[in-house]
Amino acid sequence: MNVYMDHAGTTPLDPRVAKEMEPYSLTKYGNPSSLYTLGMEAREGIDEARSQISKFLNVKNTYDKIVFTSGGTESNNLALKGVAYAYRKKGKHIITSKIEHHAILEPCEWLEKEGFQVTYLPVDKYGMVNPQELESAIRKDTILVSIMHANNEIGTIEPIEELTKVAHDHGALFHTDAVQTYGKIPVDVEAMQVDILSMSAHKIYGPRGVGALYIRKGVRMQPLFHGGGHEFRKRSGTENTPGIVGFGMATKIAKSEMSHDKKKQSKLRDKLIKGSLLIDNSRLNGHPKKRLPNNVNCIYLYVEGESLILELDFHGISANTGSACSSKSLEPSHVLGALGLKPEESHGSIRFTLGRQNTKEEVNYVLEVLPKVIERFRSISPFKEDFILQE
Amino acid sequence: MNVYMDHAGTTPLDPRVAKEMEPYSLTKYGNPSSLYTLGMEAREGIDEARSQISKFLNVKNTYDKIVFTSGGTESNNLALKGVAYAYRKKGKHIITSKIEHHAILEPCEWLEKEGFQVTYLPVDKYGMVNPQELESAIRKDTILVSIMHANNEIGTIEPIEELTKVAHDHGALFHTDAVQTYGKIPVDVEAMQVDILSMSAHKIYGPRGVGALYIRKGVRMQPLFHGGGHEFRKRSGTENTPGIVGFGMATKIAKSEMSHDKKKQSKLRDKLIKGSLLIDNSRLNGHPKKRLPNNVNCIYLYVEGESLILELDFHGISANTGSACSSKSLEPSHVLGALGLKPEESHGSIRFTLGRQNTKEEVNYVLEVLPKVIERFRSISPFKEDFILQE
Repeated sequence: MNVYMDHAGTTPLDPRVAKEMEPYSLTKYGNPSSLYTLGMEAREGIDEARSQISKFLNVKNTYDKIVFTSGGTESNNLALKGVAYAYRKKGKHIITSKIEHHAILEPCEWLEKEGFQVTYLPVDKYGMVNPQELESAIRKDTILVSIMHANNEIGTIEPIEELTKVAHDHGALFHTDAVQTYGKIPVDVEAMQVDILSMSAHKIYGPRGVGALYIRKGVRMQPLFHGGGHEFRKRSGTENTPGIVGFGMATKIAKSEMSHDKKKQSKLRDKLIKGSLLIDNSRLNGHPKKRLPNNVNCIYLYVEGESLILELDFHGISANTGSACSSKSLEPSHVLGALGLKPEESHGSIRFTLGRQNTKEEVNYVLEVLPKVIERFRSISPFKEDFILQE
Repeated sequence: MNVYMDHAGTTPLDPRVAKEMEPYSLTKYGNPSSLYTLGMEAREGIDEARSQISKFLNVKNTYDKIVFTSGGTESNNLALKGVAYAYRKKGKHIITSKIEHHAILEPCEWLEKEGFQVTYLPVDKYGMVNPQELESAIRKDTILVSIMHANNEIGTIEPIEELTKVAHDHGALFHTDAVQTYGKIPVDVEAMQVDILSMSAHKIYGPRGVGALYIRKGVRMQPLFHGGGHEFRKRSGTENTPGIVGFGMATKIAKSEMSHDKKKQSKLRDKLIKGSLLIDNSRLNGHPKKRLPNNVNCIYLYVEGESLILELDFHGISANTGSACSSKSLEPSHVLGALGLKPEESHGSIRFTLGRQNTKEEVNYVLEVLPKVIERFRSISPFKEDFILQE
């Protein structure tokens, strides 16, 4: 049995999306910035995608913008560096959290080298950012607060509405990395009142290499790519028409199937969590309730996550340690570290992230394989003695 | 008859490329940075593409790198800003030419605002950069010279080998924007001895949203995207596996068909140039010989390029004024300006760029429509009087 459970890493392209994209590669291939008919057909496809995304986000102001990018990493880099450089005369302080994605933390570290100051807020044991911590950290020269909508490793959903309010009360802009929530749970820019929001297509059965940034009216931003002035002069480069059209279609499908998907996946998620916790010395990472509908992240003490991934792969199961982006690194997860886990604990954590195609049978299969594999690893573990002692 | 002649703007996706890409979207969709089998299959696809591109470029040193990006604009921005920031302690002077693509000129202007100095070299009436002008402009603090391999508007091919030699003699790095040449004429990094080179997939029947940067061993570069550390830590973000695989396949096809395509297209090009110049008051822009095999760019005095494009479109012909990227702008072309053309002359220029599918019959059709359209426009032109006077 082949079971793919790394949907937070990436998803297969939905064949309905592929079908929608195809004509924009093969026949309606004109450059959308051109004057001729073939270019205008492409432009219409892009406009339609922008409208589909605006609808999902509940964008109300027609002067708000959806700017297409090459993905979540670009969106996050553009948001952070673009705002930092546009507002640097106003202030040079940025606030984020310790559990952000690398595509937020690394740009922040770069900005620190360029003379900005960054405060990294701590989180509680569930990975929640406390609005009061933000209140204490915020300064007169804080120009931007960036807190993710939900964490990619542990699935915890942050209290964005409250955090945005604190930021705005102090005159700072608010950005959220919604790469893990967009298309999976409601992402409402009006309700959350965020100023800037990052999205990615390939996390929701859309194409690779496409993302977007929501930018509220009046927010200034320096571009990362200078050139022909595409995308409202925020992001130059020939528009990736098929990719953008695919992102729009993936959004449309996500919108219409979200409530069904959410219900189905959270049921499977709870079943998988429950079954996993029957294994001795296991523990759930992340918030038990305020959690993405598709995220299961557990620690199995005295085993090594990477070996577990490889052994599960041998049984046809694709899972991941923390973040796909750093899965080849041997560094312990910065997210689990921020929750207070010791490196030896976080090394025994693995993440299953469910998707549209996963079934009850697949969850049963994982729950059949997983305990056996863990038992075998523990029986040969160098930590075995500690393990027995602790028993 | 529908005739697409804006291949310098963009090209349709080759169905052979589409076929190669498909499995990486639908079945081999694993995240290439993951440990499981599905991720490794994707990784192999990326490695193969890297090797196909290295072969086309005649890369000899295995420590030279091909870094995948989202396209030509990103590649150019990464090259310029990445080198500028990595070498700023050594010097802050950059040299480029007046006829570069906006994706070079605009980053240069941005760098000037950030404290760098940029010299914009003039060109002769054919658009050629003179190596002696470079020699005179180069300074001790010049860190980078960036001159395009061939111009996107007028097709002139620059003397890169000589220019690189001058740069290297003075200790500066050399970058070339090869977006218009890659896949169309030989682009040999060993022969040209360039240090950095920009490419784009969608100009050679590959997918949109993919490009690459060749980086010679030892060249330092700050990333534009910070994050998970993908692409040798030069460009973070989940790899666009289908796009990258498509770029590799498009390259492979271009390599095997280049000599045939070049021969066929330059024959059609010469026929189209010859026929166009039979029109009164017309003139070729760009170099008559050192010219891209697919580029035709002529001035037709006393007509207005934009109107001509729209009228040709009405007859089923897709052509363009200067650059697709700025075709909606009413600014006269900076390239034609640099050749010494007056604004009223450059406004009457249009560009036809041939592609693999164009035929002799299509060229005949264009040569049948074009003179009629121009004649009609001239008969109602406000410049008519000048025109008659000059006659």
